[in-house]
Amino acid sequence: MKELEQQLDFILELDNLKRVYRQALVKPDGNRQENSAEHSWHVAMLAQTLCHYAQEPVDVARVVNMLLIHDIVEIDAGDTFAFASEHELDGQQDKEFQAANRIFGLLPDTQCRHVKELWLEFEAANTADARFAKAMDRILPLLQNMQNEGGSWARHSVKRSQVVERNKYLEGLAPELWGYALEQIDLAVEKGWLLSG
Amino acid sequence: MKELEQQLDFILELDNLKRVYRQALVKPDGNRQENSAEHSWHVAMLAQTLCHYAQEPVDVARVVNMLLIHDIVEIDAGDTFAFASEHELDGQQDKEFQAANRIFGLLPDTQCRHVKELWLEFEAANTADARFAKAMDRILPLLQNMQNEGGSWARHSVKRSQVVERNKYLEGLAPELWGYALEQIDLAVEKGWLLSG
Repeated sequence: MKELEQQLDFILELDNLKRVYRQALVKPDGNRQENSAEHSWHVAMLAQTLCHYAQEPVDVARVVNMLLIHDIVEIDAGDTFAFASEHELDGQQDKEFQAANRIFGLLPDTQCRHVKELWLEFEAANTADARFAKAMDRILPLLQNMQNEGGSWARHSVKRSQVVERNKYLEGLAPELWGYALEQIDLAVEKGWLLSG
Repeated sequence: MKELEQQLDFILELDNLKRVYRQALVKPDGNRQENSAEHSWHVAMLAQTLCHYAQEPVDVARVVNMLLIHDIVEIDAGDTFAFASEHELDGQQDKEFQAANRIFGLLPDTQCRHVKELWLEFEAANTADARFAKAMDRILPLLQNMQNEGGSWARHSVKRSQVVERNKYLEGLAPELWGYALEQIDLAVEKGWLLSG
């Protein structure tokens, strides 16, 4: 029973991700801020739906799992805005590593190791699975902002070049999606939702 | 590009699941109601964490996918309380079928068929994958209510026998989890969170 108790402690801890709020807004719910739990669901659905655009072999079940766990460290470390300054990100990586140790450490050893490795793979983005997961995590806010008159871009005076840079994981990995992202970015500049430059 | 547009329409439609609120409360976020998008994430994590308790072979990637999509029909059909009366459920199944046709129908044909089949499999609960997914969807509110002084049980005067019946998918499929659920149910009666009988 010991193992089950550890697993359920982890599961109950996850409730806390539902109180971590992001910059993205949920338009159909009165433009309230989105939380990282519902975002994790949405981005897992996005990966599932778009996985066949990947030009390298991608294991979609691993990508989905990566995306389900990718934000759990925010329970302790908080969400950081995609275009935060270096100063604002100071110490963030340490906080996230400590969070991974504490939260994944609630699980029995073998599961803890497995989940931590998956999270580290996502963070390092050195494998096709992790790069596709990152690409999905980055294109989803673009889709949301385009639905929402520029959303967090407009509120934070984000520049075209920052969004292009952030979506570059798509470039070699999923050229059709990369082309679509560039079109949308140009449209956002045209509409005044992104600063040119 | 046509196919991509259909897929992105589906993805943007999913934002609406974040405004469907359930009876479960999110304790760490001021006891607000939980929405079905964050619930879908949480239950997918639960299945991932507990899949090795299944006594029959279960394909965890399929179970996770089933759980990610299982509530999408609520965008149109709304959430119904687990212990709603027959009268309250009148017409609900029709609404859900229509919702599945409309929402999954946003996807290109092959994907639409695949997702609809997965949802129908979950609903019918005739396969080990679907029964395990259902079992996870039913034990999670039990775990949440136990953390929350009875939560939705206490507010709606739910009986012990109703919760036992609802968690019966676990009985043959995951006996250790079934034993745990029964213990918790008895504890809930003792604490006055569930009515005996």
